[in-house]
Amino acid sequence: VNLIKIAVIPGDGVGPEVTAEAIKVLKKVSELRSNAIGGVLDFAEYDFGGKAIDTQGVPLPQATLEACKSAQAVLLGAVGGPQWPRPVDANDASKGLGPRPEQGLLDLRQELELYANLRPMSFASDSLLKSSPLKYEVAEGAEFMMIRELIGGVYFGKRQETDANGQAWDTTEYSVDQVKRVARLAGLLATAGKEHKKIHSIDKANVMATSRLWRKVVTETIEAEFPGVELQHHLVDAAAMLMVKNPRALNGIILTENMFGDILSDESSVIPGSLGLLPSASLGGIIDGKSPIFGMYEPIHGSAPDIAGNGVANPIGSILSAAMLLRYSLGREAEANAIEQAVRKVLDDDELNGYGMRTRDLGGECTTTQMGDAVVRAL
Amino acid sequence: VNLIKIAVIPGDGVGPEVTAEAIKVLKKVSELRSNAIGGVLDFAEYDFGGKAIDTQGVPLPQATLEACKSAQAVLLGAVGGPQWPRPVDANDASKGLGPRPEQGLLDLRQELELYANLRPMSFASDSLLKSSPLKYEVAEGAEFMMIRELIGGVYFGKRQETDANGQAWDTTEYSVDQVKRVARLAGLLATAGKEHKKIHSIDKANVMATSRLWRKVVTETIEAEFPGVELQHHLVDAAAMLMVKNPRALNGIILTENMFGDILSDESSVIPGSLGLLPSASLGGIIDGKSPIFGMYEPIHGSAPDIAGNGVANPIGSILSAAMLLRYSLGREAEANAIEQAVRKVLDDDELNGYGMRTRDLGGECTTTQMGDAVVRAL
Ligand SMILES: CC(C)[C@H](C(=O)O)[C@@H](O)C(=O)O
Ligand SMILES: CC(C)[C@H](C(=O)O)[C@@H](O)C(=O)O
Repeated sequence: VNLIKIAVIPGDGVGPEVTAEAIKVLKKVSELRSNAIGGVLDFAEYDFGGKAIDTQGVPLPQATLEACKSAQAVLLGAVGGPQWPRPVDANDASKGLGPRPEQGLLDLRQELELYANLRPMSFASDSLLKSSPLKYEVAEGAEFMMIRELIGGVYFGKRQETDANGQAWDTTEYSVDQVKRVARLAGLLATAGKEHKKIHSIDKANVMATSRLWRKVVTETIEAEFPGVELQHHLVDAAAMLMVKNPRALNGIILTENMFGDILSDESSVIPGSLGLLPSASLGGIIDGKSPIFGMYEPIHGSAPDIAGNGVANPIGSILSAAMLLRYSLGREAEANAIEQAVRKVLDDDELNGYGMRTRDLGGECTTTQMGDAVVRAL
Repeated sequence: VNLIKIAVIPGDGVGPEVTAEAIKVLKKVSELRSNAIGGVLDFAEYDFGGKAIDTQGVPLPQATLEACKSAQAVLLGAVGGPQWPRPVDANDASKGLGPRPEQGLLDLRQELELYANLRPMSFASDSLLKSSPLKYEVAEGAEFMMIRELIGGVYFGKRQETDANGQAWDTTEYSVDQVKRVARLAGLLATAGKEHKKIHSIDKANVMATSRLWRKVVTETIEAEFPGVELQHHLVDAAAMLMVKNPRALNGIILTENMFGDILSDESSVIPGSLGLLPSASLGGIIDGKSPIFGMYEPIHGSAPDIAGNGVANPIGSILSAAMLLRYSLGREAEANAIEQAVRKVLDDDELNGYGMRTRDLGGECTTTQMGDAVVRAL
């Protein structure tokens, strides 16, 4: 048989709980549609983040990295928690702190060349609009995909910790090639559906040199390679306003660099009322618009230590991440859609079938496994 | 007589219209309370921004800069518009673009050492809550003062435009002294009222060296000099979420560096439903917590070229900036409060007195001068 290797990194906090539900759903899909999948999904688990620090002393063990590299996709739970970084010596604070789980995440992104982080923002169900902090008429119909460049910018530039003169600095760095690569991905995603989507590119070109490079290369790439795609540039401060004032005005694809993407994607993620609903994909490798792409998939919520182990976390973010895995890394659009439809069914108000299910973050009492089981049933 | 010099920079777009109303209000206050003001307010106007580019070829003429330096405070309208930067030669695009109005603003901030930008975010009137994009129960009671460091960070660091290798970079730079100065101002403002306010400091300490410097110096300064003040650190991505999800959780003073402050202050400014309502102060000079401080005051809205000249812009942002001018640069707290109360009166639903006034941005039909006149009457 053809083994399709998925490296699973349950990680910390609620990570293992939600990942288990996503795997359950993936297994059911591959059972129902084994022909389409074209192989047997093989899930093997690896240590990472806080857990790896505790078991192996480092957040990204070599074995985990190699397993990820040789897999077709990575499914990640959540990373970190208040117990890390731990003191190097519990009895001697002067020895400082040990490794940080988040460093493992940054290293993994770079090692796997995951240059584009995709976060679709849409209401999995209209009935969820009422949990949004935004007014119904403001949030209604907001639907975009955020693409954040993930291995450039200030995250991976040179920096200087405070020196003897009391100065510190960080550099934001971008090259033409780095910007072109992610702009091309945005163009491909904009033209993937029946209707072309508009691209909103975000920068701070009135101040930063890297933003002027960004704006120029994005414009050239889209004009040359995707002439049918509408492109609009926004300054990051104006975009941060628009996201709250009128998010529909950003419908389509939002393309931005690493730091602005970190801020804006988190800002946008509260629109649907719960982080627990939102998936993400971090894509790497070369993209030709046809073949599947290597990627890492994770819900956007964190490790939520306050509820970890209680079986009440919302697994929808992880389950929808599994759908993205099928779409981008296995090229199974129809199966991805099937999961998304099942999720919508389970969330929609429908007392007849016992759906309209809500985990605690959405004001309900449904458990993590009940939610996962319901999605499996609805498939 | 003692002349109190206020340099007025009406600027571009709606700037002159709203500034005229603020001056009207300041004149009325100084007439009603001439003893308290202790002198005669002297308003002289200077060219700046787009207007100065058109009349003198540069956004910040020397005469404007010198007038600002010798004044006790600067009152600014708005800067920029779609007509700038103009092509150097209208018949030859290859000659590129001329000067940018915004560069004048950056230069002025640096020349005047305006190291702290203050933006109070509160509902001038509870009845305005209905124009907020946030739900009533989310926005209700949100009230904070944002302090943005204004002359450091990526705005004034070294940078490299795209070079022959296709690389560009920007540096974010901070020194211990730069951070200490603005942290001290935050401490003074936190302890200025009857009750101490909480300080929320925002950074990206899990990635940036300058953020680690920021966090360390803010902590040390507040602990050493303002021991009664509660301090909480937030990562910028988490803060961008909280601002929409539960803005009350940030009540108090929000302290952050230049770029994050640019993004977060704009994000927060849409909470009250219209940018037209919000003032700002940019403070410079040495602060002892007692003497008045040199400052530049401007509404946070832009030049709004679409409505410029129509007499419909909301002057409240400019009028409340004039109140901040009285408070910080002239040390007239009581007179500042009087303006703020008059504004509240005019905005509050009160049909008996013909108030509950709304300019177009708030869904009403009141003109710029009607609004200014009403505030004068309500004083
Ligand atoms: C943990 C942190 C370094 C990370 C980032 O800033 O990229 C996180 O906020 C994210 O968005 O995945
Ligand atoms: C015009 C621009 C340079 C400026 C800034 O980014 O500081 C503006 O956005 C502001 O916030 O005053």
